[in-house]
Amino acid sequence: MHVERICVVGLGLMGGSLALALRLARRMAIPQRPFHLTIVDTNPKTRAAAGRIVDFVSDDLALGVEKADLVVLATPVRTIVNVLNQLPQLRPDGCMVLDLGSSKTDICQAMDNLPDTFQAIGGHPMCGKEVAGFGGATPDLFRQQTFILCPTQRTTPALEAVAQQIVMDVGANPLVLPPALHDNMVAVVSHLPYMVAAALMRNAAQLGDERLWPVSSSGFRDTSRVSGTDPQMMLDILLTNKTAVLQQIAQYQTQLADVAALIAAHDEEKLMQWLIETQQAYWAYRQAKKDS
Amino acid sequence: MHVERICVVGLGLMGGSLALALRLARRMAIPQRPFHLTIVDTNPKTRAAAGRIVDFVSDDLALGVEKADLVVLATPVRTIVNVLNQLPQLRPDGCMVLDLGSSKTDICQAMDNLPDTFQAIGGHPMCGKEVAGFGGATPDLFRQQTFILCPTQRTTPALEAVAQQIVMDVGANPLVLPPALHDNMVAVVSHLPYMVAAALMRNAAQLGDERLWPVSSSGFRDTSRVSGTDPQMMLDILLTNKTAVLQQIAQYQTQLADVAALIAAHDEEKLMQWLIETQQAYWAYRQAKKDS
Repeated sequence: MHVERICVVGLGLMGGSLALALRLARRMAIPQRPFHLTIVDTNPKTRAAAGRIVDFVSDDLALGVEKADLVVLATPVRTIVNVLNQLPQLRPDGCMVLDLGSSKTDICQAMDNLPDTFQAIGGHPMCGKEVAGFGGATPDLFRQQTFILCPTQRTTPALEAVAQQIVMDVGANPLVLPPALHDNMVAVVSHLPYMVAAALMRNAAQLGDERLWPVSSSGFRDTSRVSGTDPQMMLDILLTNKTAVLQQIAQYQTQLADVAALIAAHDEEKLMQWLIETQQAYWAYRQAKKDS
Repeated sequence: MHVERICVVGLGLMGGSLALALRLARRMAIPQRPFHLTIVDTNPKTRAAAGRIVDFVSDDLALGVEKADLVVLATPVRTIVNVLNQLPQLRPDGCMVLDLGSSKTDICQAMDNLPDTFQAIGGHPMCGKEVAGFGGATPDLFRQQTFILCPTQRTTPALEAVAQQIVMDVGANPLVLPPALHDNMVAVVSHLPYMVAAALMRNAAQLGDERLWPVSSSGFRDTSRVSGTDPQMMLDILLTNKTAVLQQIAQYQTQLADVAALIAAHDEEKLMQWLIETQQAYWAYRQAKKDS
């Protein structure tokens, strides 16, 4: 299943990488598959930078989606929901819709509410960088990464085939999950890691001693890395996945409080057990990633 | 200043990498500098693996330190303290001592208590891996990393020169810090990151759903990486740097509680400010590392 005219709304790290990857995949295909790419972005610099890789660039959503077979929404989550709510007016005849947002419940609900002239499916490529924006975009960002697809009441077999083709075009591995399960899982492995890294970064920065940085090494660098994530993207994630995120923070704080109590009590035996279990959990995770 | 006979006690990741790096540096020196390397390790497999790179291998501490000009203690922290307490009996004539332990107050205090036939200085190379043991050792582990030196009451100018030469031989950058300041700083940038990563790993593992791992990506991988750290090493660190570690965990819990409250209150403005400040702190840290 092939769609020719694609409009990417929001040319950030994700949307930009998807655009680059799709263009490459379709050029490399034998025979070449026809491809018309439109970009909608509110940032003039991004539009200027995108000019050389796309067929049509606009800051006007109505103009961008006008003739698209497929609209790919790649802005922060709440903007995606806003655009979904505007689509029925902008495209009374309907079209296909995929998004790349980081939380899925609100987005998939907005997709459910689209008129049945639309076909829509939620998407979330599980990859990223601490550098936001089109400047960080690369065509290989999705390669060998998991690309989650969340079916909605507007998902047809035809759209699912289109989405699976796109996932394959960008070199990713599709995984179908219901939106609520997706949101709970990413709270555990993506949103909580951000919170954890951010609090670590702030805790170090508040010491206000510049001799701290030469003392810091790869452990601090890696554990704090995702604290550099784009604030607007995180704001939307935290507010749209609030319940799951707060639950994970609470569980996490209990984990920390438990081990702090073992240290305070100098309970060598239980502390050692805690450390061994932790290392085992880490290697079980590493093995699972290796086997996959 | 050159010492010829060096005895490394504990051939793990750190001791092993130091042995490999020193051997390489002394072979490459023009003219070659004479070097006699003794290894003491309680693990028969490690001793067998080390045989080809050293001049003398033993499981007997007394035998190992007998003729050493410099003893380098590279075991977990509490074993270092034990060995320091035994040294006066084993070497009544004294010798030079350097250690590579991860917390410094207890070690430097034991060094202070050595008879004045000894010269002793605390050391801590700020590098590591989530893989422990001689199997992970590489001669370039210390290259361009900070190597902290903590002077004690037994530190002479001659020993400081020897220690600085060793730091330079292994390609590291020396940084002199008092033991208490060292311990506070590493609690912030090394011991807290371990706790944070460990609690994150346990929190994810307790979900007990294997579909979680395909959903996890580079963010989870990096934020959780140091949870794989050797349990015995961490046990000694947490128990010998207890006060600073507990203080950092408490501060950290406050950071998390504060931001959880902003999310729960849906305080968009303050949450956005928190996210922006965090990103700024991250980039300030990255810039400081780049400039150094």
